[in-house]
Amino acid sequence: MTRYQHLAALLGQRIEQGLYRSGERLPSVRALSSEHGVSISTVQQAYHLLETRQLIIPQPRSGYFVAPRKATPPIPALTRPAQRPVEITQWESVLELFNACLDNSAFNFGSGTPDVSQSSIKPLWKFMSRFCQRQDERVLNYGNMYGVRELREQVARLALDSGCQLTRDDIVITTGCQEALFVAVRAICESGDIVAVESPTFPGTLQLLRGLGIKVIEIPTCAIEGMSLDALKLALEQWPIKAVLLVPTCNNPLGFCMSDAYKQALITLAQQFDVAIIEDDAYGELAYDYPRPRTVKSFDDDGRVLLCSSFSKTIAPGLRVGWIAPGRYLERVLHMKYVCTGYTVTHTQLTVAEFIGQGWYQPHLRRMRMQYKANLDVFTCQVREYFPCEICVSRPQGGFLMWIELPEQFDSLRLNRDVRKAGIQIAAGSLFSASGKYRNCMRLNYSLPFTQETSQGLRIVGETVAKMLAERDDGKCRAESPVEPGRNPIP
Amino acid sequence: MTRYQHLAALLGQRIEQGLYRSGERLPSVRALSSEHGVSISTVQQAYHLLETRQLIIPQPRSGYFVAPRKATPPIPALTRPAQRPVEITQWESVLELFNACLDNSAFNFGSGTPDVSQSSIKPLWKFMSRFCQRQDERVLNYGNMYGVRELREQVARLALDSGCQLTRDDIVITTGCQEALFVAVRAICESGDIVAVESPTFPGTLQLLRGLGIKVIEIPTCAIEGMSLDALKLALEQWPIKAVLLVPTCNNPLGFCMSDAYKQALITLAQQFDVAIIEDDAYGELAYDYPRPRTVKSFDDDGRVLLCSSFSKTIAPGLRVGWIAPGRYLERVLHMKYVCTGYTVTHTQLTVAEFIGQGWYQPHLRRMRMQYKANLDVFTCQVREYFPCEICVSRPQGGFLMWIELPEQFDSLRLNRDVRKAGIQIAAGSLFSASGKYRNCMRLNYSLPFTQETSQGLRIVGETVAKMLAERDDGKCRAESPVEPGRNPIP
Repeated sequence: MTRYQHLAALLGQRIEQGLYRSGERLPSVRALSSEHGVSISTVQQAYHLLETRQLIIPQPRSGYFVAPRKATPPIPALTRPAQRPVEITQWESVLELFNACLDNSAFNFGSGTPDVSQSSIKPLWKFMSRFCQRQDERVLNYGNMYGVRELREQVARLALDSGCQLTRDDIVITTGCQEALFVAVRAICESGDIVAVESPTFPGTLQLLRGLGIKVIEIPTCAIEGMSLDALKLALEQWPIKAVLLVPTCNNPLGFCMSDAYKQALITLAQQFDVAIIEDDAYGELAYDYPRPRTVKSFDDDGRVLLCSSFSKTIAPGLRVGWIAPGRYLERVLHMKYVCTGYTVTHTQLTVAEFIGQGWYQPHLRRMRMQYKANLDVFTCQVREYFPCEICVSRPQGGFLMWIELPEQFDSLRLNRDVRKAGIQIAAGSLFSASGKYRNCMRLNYSLPFTQETSQGLRIVGETVAKMLAERDDGKCRAESPVEPGRNPIP
Repeated sequence: MTRYQHLAALLGQRIEQGLYRSGERLPSVRALSSEHGVSISTVQQAYHLLETRQLIIPQPRSGYFVAPRKATPPIPALTRPAQRPVEITQWESVLELFNACLDNSAFNFGSGTPDVSQSSIKPLWKFMSRFCQRQDERVLNYGNMYGVRELREQVARLALDSGCQLTRDDIVITTGCQEALFVAVRAICESGDIVAVESPTFPGTLQLLRGLGIKVIEIPTCAIEGMSLDALKLALEQWPIKAVLLVPTCNNPLGFCMSDAYKQALITLAQQFDVAIIEDDAYGELAYDYPRPRTVKSFDDDGRVLLCSSFSKTIAPGLRVGWIAPGRYLERVLHMKYVCTGYTVTHTQLTVAEFIGQGWYQPHLRRMRMQYKANLDVFTCQVREYFPCEICVSRPQGGFLMWIELPEQFDSLRLNRDVRKAGIQIAAGSLFSASGKYRNCMRLNYSLPFTQETSQGLRIVGETVAKMLAERDDGKCRAESPVEPGRNPIP
């Protein structure tokens, strides 16, 4: 980030945290310049940026004021899915979303794609290129079925940060986290088995369970604490559940991080009922707090956790470099990996290993965590402005995905079709449930640097939501215009 | 190939075809030089190469003579697997082979790896590098779930050569042919279903069926004509078979190409019993005859053939670029592809699309077909020399894999362990059967340019086989030394 962007982010946070209140006058340009030891023009640029984000409003000859805002929306309540195993549906909606994405013109709030445009990722190109220039024959040949040794060594080192003691031989490299999850599930489950998942759950996971003929039981999940362990226990008592599959750190889509105590309790419960745990940690390294939270795997003392992750969210999804540490299921996982795709592409594995080994990964992670956290503040602010008052919004602890809950009966599939006309995509909530629940919810991606277009896109989504709600109950709760004249406290 | 290699290949073929007979004197250096319009030294180099390959023997002041040779070994007879569905075993042997391969020092006759060291592949590096230098963001992002459009267009064009009319929208790109086969099988079969396969069959296929809980019925297969359709018909009448999975062109491991008439008859049979056909064409473009044989898919008029292939054998396996044309099963295949690995690596797809699109693929294919065909002649000759007389050897019509059958009771797993001490790997025949049949067989890879080391490696394998057979029956058929003094007809 340049100096002015940094200052803008800092001021944005202060506004978000309420240190500068709605309508309050901000420090003068001169005062900020001397406080932060930066030039007048840097402060002016920072204020200009905040102005384009509609966080502050300039008043001629009076300076800058914090823009008026509505109350912070509440967090979604504990979910209440059906407490019985169900077959998974919704493939048609997933396919529709994908086919719509093929139109590249869409402004995509619906995807799970990270920002891959920042300068901290640039060294990756150099390493990738170097293997080609050297005509490294490893790139062309079948490699090692476990994956490139150097990469497995780096993964083992990184896993230490999440509290896991792994060696390179505990790890199998996969084609993205998706393959890691696939081989994990198939290593444990047969067709007809039951797996417990969070509710809502990542559609890729639900559809893979469907693909293997597995039923799911969706467990009530809290947007702050994660999967309800009480509800899980009841389900384990009642049904022959084979495995619990969850995203306990920087959850997709709710954004929570389960506490260490909950993670430990989950392990105890899994031991008590002798079920496996499949832990999806794809977003774990993007937790806003440092050091990053521990994995459930780090509490595992009998090898029942299959830890799955990838560099798709932290470096780039197109590389398709994922991994699994399958604990006691190593040989079965290896068999499934062999039959599923045989080997993983060597070139991207070598590239990622170099990127980490040469010390570029940690600075890149820090950079992206900061960006996503700053984006979250702006995004929350904008959603609050543009959306009607009847919404609940998640408070992500990491990653770049936000969950918005609208009044019951709201149809986010229709919303998606409506906003698509304006070249905009969202992810409809019903994709995140086996039975199409959460049709009144949506997931938004806030990974990209905030621009006028982002703001415009969000405004269109918000206004379309308001229109649909107004249609529903004839104006019971209309969308409010971004700056309400009546409530404007600026002098 | 350089000029002298070309001349050597030509002379080698003439010897192989019997135009120059065993013990016969070869044309003088001067005569060949004027016949082929090449220099004296080119002829001398060519003769030297044939001498290192032990195809010819120099006699001081008399010139060169065709080395003595034993009779051409017979082709393996029609196989006779058990005619009932069986569970698949042998994973432990596959794993053992893979773990042994991790030791890179091994001289590997056991793998299915093509030669990736020839100059005709070099442009690939340039294209691969170019996408990095341009920092093409497609490389980093999730692509299209169907695969890169340019590549699908090229695949559709190539498929014309095998008689298939496909559009880019009929094709899904996969992580190697392995993923294509995996999604094909899972799109059609449930756990417990029965699939008919050739016998012997590629271990990757057998293990994937095992991974999905599917039983196989191995159909008797002829090393010249392919799967016995009579036996298949009997099996279809007797068992509820869901699909027939086969490698009808340049079969792995037997090397046959099924005739067009047989391919048409197979389609008719599949229609009669309403079963799907999964066609593995990974080696199809390496058929020695030009134009390449048609695929079974080209005779398919109701979308029941799922054609699976890749560029692993024709360009390079490390790229992991495969594809499937799933006919009427497109949507189910797409679902399985999504849940299995999500997307395929974009960079290698773009690279392969450029390599084909810029016109480098066809010359490369021609180059490799010629090399493999020339290697086959030398290899056959050497196997004949170094191995005991009691063997049957396949006559591959394409690709780079040879099947050798030894007397019953011979243990190729033990052979593999014995030759491994000398840093050599073979593929034991038992891996190619669901129930561990063909333990008396082995598959050898002849893709790499023939060297003194290859010859030495083959000699060690041959001598070890002879020793094991001698142990077995106390010398009933001993290995013969490469040049038998008594039978030496050279003056």
